[in-house]
Parts: sequence; C-alpha cells; structure tokens
Amino acid sequence: MKVFVNGYGFLGKLLARELMDHRVSGVKLVGVARSSGYVHRDEGLSPDDLKGDLSDSEVFTKGSALSLIREGAFDVLVELTPTNLPSAEPGLSNIRAALSNGIDVVTANKAPIALRYRELTDLASSAGKLLLFDSTVGGGIPLITLRRLCMRGDDLLSIRGILNGTTNYILSRMQFEGLTFELALREAQNLGIAERDPSLDVNGYDTALKLLILANSLMGLDRGLEDVRVAGITRVTQEAVAAARESNMSVKLIGSVDGEGKLLVAPRLVKANDPLCVHGTLNAVTFRFRIARDLTLIGHGAGEPTVSSLLNDLHQVVEFRLRGATSA
Amino acid sequence: MKVFVNGYGFLGKLLARELMDHRVSGVKLVGVARSSGYVHRDEGLSPDDLKGDLSDSEVFTKGSALSLIREGAFDVLVELTPTNLPSAEPGLSNIRAALSNGIDVVTANKAPIALRYRELTDLASSAGKLLLFDSTVGGGIPLITLRRLCMRGDDLLSIRGILNGTTNYILSRMQFEGLTFELALREAQNLGIAERDPSLDVNGYDTALKLLILANSLMGLDRGLEDVRVAGITRVTQEAVAAARESNMSVKLIGSVDGEGKLLVAPRLVKANDPLCVHGTLNAVTFRFRIARDLTLIGHGAGEPTVSSLLNDLHQVVEFRLRGATSA
Repeated sequence: MKVFVNGYGFLGKLLARELMDHRVSGVKLVGVARSSGYVHRDEGLSPDDLKGDLSDSEVFTKGSALSLIREGAFDVLVELTPTNLPSAEPGLSNIRAALSNGIDVVTANKAPIALRYRELTDLASSAGKLLLFDSTVGGGIPLITLRRLCMRGDDLLSIRGILNGTTNYILSRMQFEGLTFELALREAQNLGIAERDPSLDVNGYDTALKLLILANSLMGLDRGLEDVRVAGITRVTQEAVAAARESNMSVKLIGSVDGEGKLLVAPRLVKANDPLCVHGTLNAVTFRFRIARDLTLIGHGAGEPTVSSLLNDLHQVVEFRLRGATSA
Repeated sequence: MKVFVNGYGFLGKLLARELMDHRVSGVKLVGVARSSGYVHRDEGLSPDDLKGDLSDSEVFTKGSALSLIREGAFDVLVELTPTNLPSAEPGLSNIRAALSNGIDVVTANKAPIALRYRELTDLASSAGKLLLFDSTVGGGIPLITLRRLCMRGDDLLSIRGILNGTTNYILSRMQFEGLTFELALREAQNLGIAERDPSLDVNGYDTALKLLILANSLMGLDRGLEDVRVAGITRVTQEAVAAARESNMSVKLIGSVDGEGKLLVAPRLVKANDPLCVHGTLNAVTFRFRIARDLTLIGHGAGEPTVSSLLNDLHQVVEFRLRGATSA
C-alpha cells in the first residue's frame, strides 16, 4: 500500500520516521510534501530523501502535490496541512481530490472534517473509499474508533470534554500557581505549549471544531460552526478560579453535546472528584452511553501521541483494503 | 446467528432482554440456561419462555445445557456462569465444548480466561472460532477491544489499574467518611456492593484474575495465578488512609504489570491528581504506550454496564461470520 504524507511539520516528520522503520506491515512510504515542494518515489522513499527540508533530495520537485493526488499516484493520502478557518484549505481541496481519484484518506487536519463533514463522508462513501480522522480530536486518545468499534451495541447519549490542552494548561496554572490569565498564557507560549497567536485556542474555536467532529461523526448530527455557542477563557479571572478551588472545584473549558443535540463551548465548574477534572495539558472526554453509562478517556491531546492515532487509522486502511481484495 | 445464553442471573437476564428487543441485527436468541435447566427453541425464544425462573416455559428442560453445546445446536455461546476457583468450572468445560464443536464464544466468566488463556485461545485458533471476553475485565470499559482495535500501531509497555469496584468503594468510604475497614465492608454488603462472602474481592484475587487476563491477552505473556504477588486490603487501617489523605494521596488497590512482565496486586498510594485516582465503585486503568504515552479509561466495572461489552463482543462475532461468508 503506497502512502503519501502531505505536510512535513512536527507530525509529518514523526510519522514518516515510523513508516520508514516499517512499523506498519504492508505500508510503503512513497512521498512526502511540504508547502514549497515534495519528494516522491513510486518504489518507496530512501532515508536520504527525508533529510533536512526535503530540498536536498534528488527527487525533490517544487510546487504542490495536488497534481500527484489528481493522478491517483498512490493509495493513501495522509493529510497533515494546518487547520485554516474559514477556508479549510488547502486540506479540503486535497481531500476532495484524493477521494475523487481512488485514494483513501487519513487526516489530522480538523478544519475540513469539522466544516465539511457530510460533503466529505458522502464523497468517500460514493467513491467506496475510507476517510479516517481519529487524530483530529484528542490526539492520542482514540475517541472516534472507540465509539465505532468498541461500543457497537450501545447508544451514545451525550458528550462532555476538555478538548484543548493549551487552555487546560493555562487554567491549571491559574488554579495551582495563582497566575493571572495573561501570565499563564505567556508562560505557555514560552514553553511552546501555546502558539504565538493563541486566539484559536483561548477563544474556544479549537474546542468548537473538535466538538463538531465528535457530534457529527458519533451522534449522527449535521451541525456547522454557527450552531455552536462558543465562549473562550480570556475573561476567566484569577478570583473566579480561586473561588472554585475553595469549593473543591476547577474551572475548565468544556465542550459538550447534550441529549437534544445542543453544542456548547464554555468555561464550566467541574468537581474535583469528577473523572473529567484533569490538569496540565491533558485532554479528557466523558461519553454517556445508555448501557455502559459514563465512560471517560484521559490522555495526551497533542504532539507525538497523535502519531499513534494516525498509525491506527493506517492499520484500518490496510485491513479494509485486504478485506476488499479477499472478497473480490 | 443463533445465540445461546448460559447463566441466567443478573447479567444473563439483562442481556436476554436486549437480544429479545432485537438490539443486535442478525442475532436470534435461541436459548437460555440456568443451573437447574434450560429453554431452547431453534426458531428463536418467545418472550413467554423467559418469564420467572424459566421453568414455566413449555420448552423447559431439566439438567445442563452441555449436551446442546456438544451437539453444536447454535452458533454462539454466551457463557455467564459464575467464577469458581481453582476449578474454573463449569465455564471451562462449556467453553472447551463450544469451541470444539464449531461454536464461537463470548464470556464474562473470568476464571477460564484467567487460568487457561493459552489453552483456550489455541483451541479457538485451531478451530477457527472466536473467543471474546472483554466483559471479564472492567465491566463496561472496553479495555481488550480498545487495545486490539484502536491502538494497533502502538506498543503497550505497562498497565496499572483499579480493577475491583467493591474494594474501591470500601477504601473511598474509609477515606472520605473515616470508617474502619470492617464498617465500610459491612456497609458495602448492606448496599449489595460487596457479596456475603467478600473474600475474593478484599483479598485481591478478583483483581489478580483480571490482571492476568490483561497481561496474557494484551502483553503477550503466559502467566498463571502463582506468578502474581497478591496482597488485599484487609490490613489497610483507617490511620494509613487518613495519613495518605493528609498528603493529598489515596490508598488504592492497584493491579500492575510492569515492563519486565512482573504482576503485582497491592494497596498503593496514588496521588490525588493522577487520572487513575477515582473513587466509589468506579474502575480505572492506565495503559502506557510507546507513542501515545499514558491513556486512562474510567468507567463502571460491574453490573448493567457489563452488558454493553457483551453486546459489542456479539457485534464482533456477527461481523467476523459475515466476513467469513463473504470471502468463502
């Protein structure tokens, strides 16, 4: 199975290394792209192709990899370009082109899945291709796959979660170190936890995108960003956090979908003994099921752990294609 | 797919009700057995067959269902007889007979899986049958399926968990209400949380059995009960619990498998902000993965939520058989 990784930042580099180490049986890494150009070898990349910024490779080609996608030059596209709002580009065009040209897609790019869920899943379904995106939400926590493959006899009634590690870190520092929002944010930026422009995180829109993905893919809804009531954490005061702590609670930025399908992102009080009440950069999600009742997953929502979700999605594609071959 | 439920206690009754409501597409409930006898209709049971203790049904037959299993009279055995040590009977004989006679097995009975893991999985594998047991550990938390289907690109390095809700309830009451072990145990018994003979729970052997299942099925080990160092909670004093609380910690009965494959069950100190530190009857397990790092699952370890795991295992059997039919 020929795999092409589009996006060669932190995640792309780690994933390429795993694939070059032959961690996924049956998978051959045939190409990697960054914004300025790409490397591609149908017989599989050599380690030398991946040195530095790719441009030293003898097969480096300037420009976008979209033409390769349109040619159907490989079997699976791993789409790792950055999340852009409101265009969802270039991920959206890449995913559309891949599915339309016989290519399965695995992606960690939130925007296309959050903003074009029905269009893209309809396209995948009519093309008989897979579109997998467990790495878009909760990093290394397999939220999508868990609900789809591990809880099939149950009904999912509601979702509540801490889906953004940056804001959780800031709120935790405000709670345990008495920092103001501004100081905690600056600290997070200095540590590389928050980006230089932290607005998507602190205004709640990163959480809203992830919540949309969970709601649309796991609860059968068809919601857009305009359907989510969003409040961020920029107005959370040190006094409010301290008062919560006095009452054995924490202020957390919670994304929730209730039984009526209402989507909400807002700072909420969470009891200290609620399994959802985790600190630092951790993410946590509580699914409420009809039979299993509350099931909470806690893990790392960003960084290297996300590669684990990408690899599992690739395993699913391998299995899906093998099964197709068997039954054909 | 013809399903037979062997064991008609709390879980068996709830599962039978779900199956009669046609919750699992493609599944027909053809029989149910209790210790004194069974009801069986090849065309599917009627609601009247399941009234009371089964003996009012016109198809009630006295005696064991083992003869039906040996005839291969159905497709899937759901084995729900009680856990007995050290014999693992009657579950062990039922599972052996089923797998040897072309019947897939789903079970919530810990003893056969914990004590005869290699024998039974070898038997299933050579017979080309499924043996699924996610409901034996962590009730409604899909621990086995999560590791197998959601984390396939990752390596599991170690496991640490609260696997017994009864002891967690007792320790939580000692911590938060200042009760002694004896008083907390009596309260748990009055509430139906602890059994009249609570020894398997409080001496740690229930946790040890579950730990063996996780270690052998998820970490490729081949360990027996004699390989587990087991200490229970009967000697945990109110003073020790109170001292832990003073230091922002809790005493928890932890089952663990480390990187060297050592299995240990013992009361351990857990920090209050560790995701594993859950209270009441909740169960919690932290898997440490090479890439995803720590992933914690928290949920209900006993009672009705366990039915959710049984249903998901049944869905897996349906899918497996459909796939077999397609590729044949």
